[in-house]
Amino acid sequence: MKDDEYYMQAAIILARKGIGYVSPNPLVGALIVKNGRVIGQGYHKRYGENHAEVNAINNAAEDVAGATLYVTLEPCCHQGKTPRCTERIVKSKIRNVVIGSVDSNPLVSCRGIHFLQKRGIKVKTGVLEQECRRLNEVFFHYMETGMPFVTIKYAQTLDGRIAAASGQSQWISSEASRKFAHKLRAEHDAVLIGTGTAINDNPELTVRLVRGRNPLRVVVDSGLKTPLKAKILQNLTAVKTLIATVKSPGNPQYKLIEASGAEVITIKKDGQGKVDLKKLFKTLALRGISSVLVEGGAQIITSTLKNNLACRLVTIIAPKIIGKGIEAVEDLQIRDLNHAQKLSFQKIRRCGPDIIIDSRFR
Amino acid sequence: MKDDEYYMQAAIILARKGIGYVSPNPLVGALIVKNGRVIGQGYHKRYGENHAEVNAINNAAEDVAGATLYVTLEPCCHQGKTPRCTERIVKSKIRNVVIGSVDSNPLVSCRGIHFLQKRGIKVKTGVLEQECRRLNEVFFHYMETGMPFVTIKYAQTLDGRIAAASGQSQWISSEASRKFAHKLRAEHDAVLIGTGTAINDNPELTVRLVRGRNPLRVVVDSGLKTPLKAKILQNLTAVKTLIATVKSPGNPQYKLIEASGAEVITIKKDGQGKVDLKKLFKTLALRGISSVLVEGGAQIITSTLKNNLACRLVTIIAPKIIGKGIEAVEDLQIRDLNHAQKLSFQKIRRCGPDIIIDSRFR
Repeated sequence: MKDDEYYMQAAIILARKGIGYVSPNPLVGALIVKNGRVIGQGYHKRYGENHAEVNAINNAAEDVAGATLYVTLEPCCHQGKTPRCTERIVKSKIRNVVIGSVDSNPLVSCRGIHFLQKRGIKVKTGVLEQECRRLNEVFFHYMETGMPFVTIKYAQTLDGRIAAASGQSQWISSEASRKFAHKLRAEHDAVLIGTGTAINDNPELTVRLVRGRNPLRVVVDSGLKTPLKAKILQNLTAVKTLIATVKSPGNPQYKLIEASGAEVITIKKDGQGKVDLKKLFKTLALRGISSVLVEGGAQIITSTLKNNLACRLVTIIAPKIIGKGIEAVEDLQIRDLNHAQKLSFQKIRRCGPDIIIDSRFR
Repeated sequence: MKDDEYYMQAAIILARKGIGYVSPNPLVGALIVKNGRVIGQGYHKRYGENHAEVNAINNAAEDVAGATLYVTLEPCCHQGKTPRCTERIVKSKIRNVVIGSVDSNPLVSCRGIHFLQKRGIKVKTGVLEQECRRLNEVFFHYMETGMPFVTIKYAQTLDGRIAAASGQSQWISSEASRKFAHKLRAEHDAVLIGTGTAINDNPELTVRLVRGRNPLRVVVDSGLKTPLKAKILQNLTAVKTLIATVKSPGNPQYKLIEASGAEVITIKKDGQGKVDLKKLFKTLALRGISSVLVEGGAQIITSTLKNNLACRLVTIIAPKIIGKGIEAVEDLQIRDLNHAQKLSFQKIRRCGPDIIIDSRFR
């Protein structure tokens, strides 16, 4: 029992190596143990490439017949981009399979387990299940709700301001924290801002301070006010940009932005005549975007919260006090503390002079 | 060398046992080591009682002649409430004295060291000096500036609100954090609020959820608006309350509050016709108050910050988002992020569901 958890923990650590490279696939790690020794290990390295189980079998230092396979997620039994893992497991004569969490993908869920059991393989499930589910919180959320896993990120002073009263926000946080913010970008499929931020901060929204994939850049631009000179509308062959508007394709600005190389899509209006965020996120999900990082400004953050679209909140707190300024969250129509949106703090750590609080909505 | 630090660290841990009981004296711990064994230990337990060195000598399991004394603060050589420590050390035939930090008290500073050296005792100073100074940051600040060490404490939501828009603030934070807040009260000589808080929250400002001394309760009440029914004006024989006003003793409300058993003092007006906080703190210092805990509300917190009177900021962050509400810090006339007040995060810890950030102004 203790051994099972030990090996599963090792498989989780392997799985995490795929962060930023496998989406919208899940993160998976696998370990093959025989006679009390680890003889093979693998993880899903990149979308479209081998699954973790296959990598572990391929890397095994000796014959895996009779061995135990530890895998953080139920092995697949459908033909996707790569051959079925379950068949490969059966063929390799592995005797025991220990699974962390069961797949949420309706094409897989529990069918992998049945397939293995029917062929005489002993299957054990639920080892470090919570940890394995947390590892793939993005994947599970995406599979189970059909919506992207949405993270809101902002840097604030200790007294809760994301900018001075003038709008100046560069820089609240330290360079170390900005590096962390780029890492966060690389871990998401898309990064999203509002027009205000596109105009005032004029960010590039690319991953520069660390190595990693550039996410799709999304601007919620109901009135198509993003200037053609904006950094987000440059360099469009290397990094894609999507502008979400309520304007129709006949609009002249629509055509100009499209001509610049960005994609423009029309999304239905919400009650305020703005882009309906829920519909936008749904549209992104249908395009295979499983995670979105909302980087501001206050208006977009507030709408995301008001519509209960956020799963995770990452707050960078700088050791500064500024007094009067701009707060990240505007009116949510909450008048009673008992109706406050509740979170739980998952991870708290220092980053240079700052603190990073990583929390989940409950 | 390594040994010296080891024993000094142990003496620091002993010294901390006096927190909340010795002020305005410093926290002091002492250890006596002979032939590589600890033969005596002591700390300053309570204001007016024996000093740490004397307790360590008294508690020693064997003759201290020829031993080494480790003490976090320079031994005193003036007759205070208890006899001079230096004389007792000489009499006990201790051969070496290792000192953490030198006393800031002008009656003591370096005179204790000279006294010992002249009598043939070998003295070493500066072992874990920073840690020993930090241990007594309150005492040193008080001695060196003649002002109390001022700590601001507030509980806020993750989005930086200390109350809902209605003013409702009970309760932002958890019971665990409220217990911590009571511990903080017990560690301060005085706790201070503004009239608004006295009227709206009507706190008792006593130490109830933990064991400890009740601090002096201070209300900054320029216009003498604290109602006679306020909890802070009850139970005045057990816990003292001081009302600071700009009104003169001839004011009828002044007399009524005095008659209730609270003390009322007149403080000069500041530019806005309110109690001049700096003068109030100075007055408190002259009465032997070495530390003040500012508990709110926003107006008092803002004035304390604006006048650069705070040394420490303790922020309790609750895992909640409320949106529109009341912020702890109002306008500080800071318009540029580069002019923000700078702090450093000293300690970050979880407390129940909340986070406590303990920082120092730089």
